[in-house]
Amino acid sequence: MGRTADYSRQSCSVAATLEVIGDPWTMLVIRDAFNGVRRFEQWQERLGVARNVLAARLKSLVHHGVLEPRPYSERPPRNEYVLTAKGKDLFDVLYAMRNWSERWAYAPGETGGGPAMRYTHRACGADVGTATICPNCGEALRYGDLKGEPSAALKAEQAARGG
Amino acid sequence: MGRTADYSRQSCSVAATLEVIGDPWTMLVIRDAFNGVRRFEQWQERLGVARNVLAARLKSLVHHGVLEPRPYSERPPRNEYVLTAKGKDLFDVLYAMRNWSERWAYAPGETGGGPAMRYTHRACGADVGTATICPNCGEALRYGDLKGEPSAALKAEQAARGG
Repeated sequence: MGRTADYSRQSCSVAATLEVIGDPWTMLVIRDAFNGVRRFEQWQERLGVARNVLAARLKSLVHHGVLEPRPYSERPPRNEYVLTAKGKDLFDVLYAMRNWSERWAYAPGETGGGPAMRYTHRACGADVGTATICPNCGEALRYGDLKGEPSAALKAEQAARGG
Repeated sequence: MGRTADYSRQSCSVAATLEVIGDPWTMLVIRDAFNGVRRFEQWQERLGVARNVLAARLKSLVHHGVLEPRPYSERPPRNEYVLTAKGKDLFDVLYAMRNWSERWAYAPGETGGGPAMRYTHRACGADVGTATICPNCGEALRYGDLKGEPSAALKAEQAARGG
């Protein structure tokens, strides 16, 4: 998606973030990175995105220091891409988007009745719903604190895409 | 920005949110709504966005139930646009983007040394930095709890755009 617009020239924290992640594919690439995806072919298969688009998004995320290339093969030379500290710190943004969506964006029944993803707090086992502070033990929820399990509807969709 | 991509057909909370707010202009429209902007001309002036683009974004946000039109003039008929409960609940997403950006996205000195926006907790007066829980009193920070003050660099930029 070419940028002809001039929204980047604003000394504003939201605009500055959009400079890096303001493209929907980019956010989905990052989401998959949080879910353990590291290789070009995995993203390509999961997202169904055009290869040139995916290559451009990965390059941009490396340029912005969100992903870091790591060689995993010498012949042929191949990189995988892992989240940097700056990239991992985007967890709050993705989690806030997920929480909003679970509260508002689905039609009744669309996800099979519950959330698309169910998150439990590793430390205490509680279902955290869409909270940023654990409703059971009161701890602030950070990257790595949560264990996600896809809903049946989401699992079925993933199976359909993978198959 | 036309959408030829198919990223919306994913039963995922992040993708569902991107369906509504996955366009950079849209996020900046919402940011300004949080800052009290309600009228077409105000957005147009602040964002410098093309009128047809802005009209399309407002229409989409009304369609998705994020903004609500309210007539403020009968002759000529004119609407202003206010955040709904669903729209106000996007605060966490914007605040997470702001926090990430304040931590990572600026070059040293770009915002005059401090954050682009300084937020203080209305309840206790503490500078919250980029925290989601008040570092002084331990309360979770929600929409309406924070008072924002632009940095000198941001003020100068706003003055330049307004003048």
